[in-house]
Amino acid sequence: MKRRTLPLAQVYRLLEPGPVVLLATSRKGSANVMAMSWHTMLEFEPPLVGCVVSNRNWSFEILKATRECVIAIPTAELAQKVVACGNASGRRVDKFDTFGLTPAPAARVAAPLVDECYANLECRVVDGRMVAKYNFFVLEVVKAWIRPGVAQPRTLHHRGCGVFMVAGRTLKLPSRMK
Amino acid sequence: MKRRTLPLAQVYRLLEPGPVVLLATSRKGSANVMAMSWHTMLEFEPPLVGCVVSNRNWSFEILKATRECVIAIPTAELAQKVVACGNASGRRVDKFDTFGLTPAPAARVAAPLVDECYANLECRVVDGRMVAKYNFFVLEVVKAWIRPGVAQPRTLHHRGCGVFMVAGRTLKLPSRMK
Repeated sequence: MKRRTLPLAQVYRLLEPGPVVLLATSRKGSANVMAMSWHTMLEFEPPLVGCVVSNRNWSFEILKATRECVIAIPTAELAQKVVACGNASGRRVDKFDTFGLTPAPAARVAAPLVDECYANLECRVVDGRMVAKYNFFVLEVVKAWIRPGVAQPRTLHHRGCGVFMVAGRTLKLPSRMK
Repeated sequence: MKRRTLPLAQVYRLLEPGPVVLLATSRKGSANVMAMSWHTMLEFEPPLVGCVVSNRNWSFEILKATRECVIAIPTAELAQKVVACGNASGRRVDKFDTFGLTPAPAARVAAPLVDECYANLECRVVDGRMVAKYNFFVLEVVKAWIRPGVAQPRTLHHRGCGVFMVAGRTLKLPSRMK
């Protein structure tokens, strides 16, 4: 899949609307991927992202040990695969292989990009002090990739229990908001 | 506006899709409201929400001092008012009055509900340890209200600089995801 670099100052525009993302990790050459909705921007630049990865998830141990991951943003045509990732555990299944997702080499981290996703954010854990209490990791996005020409990505937004809202129409209002 | 209690265990379904929210606060009988997109669920029940309120915002001081707020979720017909709230400061303007929003009494906190919003979450600050470094408040939702009969709320999702995605169609997939 073709991709270009996205300036780090624009990363917040991808995560602020609250899409379901895939979190990809890798350890000893073995990659894993999970679905995640509990994330928020914490800072514009360098972009900091806070996210909850439950300690019941296989990805938790890998993220804690390697301190690296990729946040990949899927669009609606990947909905089945996203749910499949959410319903399986990397303890038992190679999810990339089983669900037909393609790991691609990242530039700055060992975790793979998810080639099918329209955006990929290479991240490093920069603060783990809230992990013990909230399973909350603070990530810095060190490199961002986006598929060229996707102006209005049909991102998925989880409403619980497998119900998703698909991104709808765009509204532009005069704003001083960043 | 008519509203009913929402069980606290279902609060995550409102915030997980990433809507722009209004954060209402009150001090000495004077209420304020700001627009906010940087929030995430941290726990299902009791529902914990993490959110960033910049220390440049007037609401920051009030939230820090009173440790109470209401997270109100607007739908698309309120877009103009949401942007107006985002473009003005409570230091200079009574935003409820100026932008035609109606404060309504909450049950458990002094901060007001925003009557025009389809959901209102009464919150208390339960952890302020990440405020100094990230302006990040951990809130517990102590009471939740929802307008009856709004199955697919047309929430707003900020893409930066006044560009919003309006919630689109719903997709239901078999899922073990909570």
